[in-house]
Amino acid sequence: MADLTLTTFDWVPEMPRGFVRDLRVRWALEEAALPYRVAGVPFDDRGPAHFAHQPFGQVPWLTDGDLSIFESGAILLHLGVRSAKLMPTDPRGRSEATEWVFAALNSVEMASLPWAMSKFMGHPTDTPAWKFVDDFLKLRLKHLEPALAGREWLAGSFSVADILMSDVLRVVGQFDGLADSPACRAYVARATARPAFIKAHADQMAHFAAADRARGA
Amino acid sequence: MADLTLTTFDWVPEMPRGFVRDLRVRWALEEAALPYRVAGVPFDDRGPAHFAHQPFGQVPWLTDGDLSIFESGAILLHLGVRSAKLMPTDPRGRSEATEWVFAALNSVEMASLPWAMSKFMGHPTDTPAWKFVDDFLKLRLKHLEPALAGREWLAGSFSVADILMSDVLRVVGQFDGLADSPACRAYVARATARPAFIKAHADQMAHFAAADRARGA
Repeated sequence: MADLTLTTFDWVPEMPRGFVRDLRVRWALEEAALPYRVAGVPFDDRGPAHFAHQPFGQVPWLTDGDLSIFESGAILLHLGVRSAKLMPTDPRGRSEATEWVFAALNSVEMASLPWAMSKFMGHPTDTPAWKFVDDFLKLRLKHLEPALAGREWLAGSFSVADILMSDVLRVVGQFDGLADSPACRAYVARATARPAFIKAHADQMAHFAAADRARGA
Repeated sequence: MADLTLTTFDWVPEMPRGFVRDLRVRWALEEAALPYRVAGVPFDDRGPAHFAHQPFGQVPWLTDGDLSIFESGAILLHLGVRSAKLMPTDPRGRSEATEWVFAALNSVEMASLPWAMSKFMGHPTDTPAWKFVDDFLKLRLKHLEPALAGREWLAGSFSVADILMSDVLRVVGQFDGLADSPACRAYVARATARPAFIKAHADQMAHFAAADRARGA
């Protein structure tokens, strides 16, 4: 079996812990029971070696043998092909999982990330800019709600699409944005109750806590 | 060969014409010289049949035999597997194309779409919300610039990743957001000079112009 290495930051501030995107990859690897190791890259000083793997200076990336893959969506599709625990194997199921992967990232997170960042930074809410951002997310959640009310998981069985969609919605829930979306809330609760999520989350928190100790924080 | 049908709106207002996302699919189909037909779905009154194909009430979707696929990213990956003109066939090239597909949509368009919408809607630019949106896009372009300066196309040869990335950047250029990004500008010019883009763009404009005539506009 090829050697899988997940690279994330060696340290991050308190705030994003539990939400750094390596979590999505850890979660998938735990679901599939694929062995992997975790490597750290400097958060403070991002050099050419970092940009060679991730052109935007972000994390994570995954190396699988001599392949190096960035973008959590691309990494999860790659792992999905490796394990039936992460993606259906029939063409229709695989197509459904793939379209929902993109829906999570390009339809929902495109709306939720600016919304969550505005919340986090405490932008004023009496502006046209906030109204646009808030309306955009509400429209997406309005349509997602019946889709999630009608099914346990997005593509028939649990898949990488659920890892991405629930991770995207989890952030919205942190800022109390799922109050009017009971099916979305139940879906996030269902996904994050899975042992693989719990282990992935604990491992990420432990990784950054160990970094604090190494820094003498 | 399976029957390919691309569904888009039967009509849209003047503004988004030339930018409706069916363009991405038309462009890919033209590059691959795959025969297809175009179907229209009501823009004004989006019913259950629409949401059954596209849960967010958007366009496009593509039917390929008995598969119906939504999300332009998922559609383009699907077509990429069908034609070597749209995606390299070796594992490394395919992986590179896939990661850049996600980079276009989840790293760049996530920043560019809120930016372009704020520009279009004329939001005030003396607010923290605008500064966040503008800084977010500038950071992405700063990192994309050297990546595009060093290569003709993102994944070795022209691929679906270039359709998506250049379409995303094209919108930024419309609002004069590529002034400090000469490599991005040259890349958009290179991509949109391709005969397949020119035909796809003309076909979309003609589709909506015919709809005006049918409405008696």
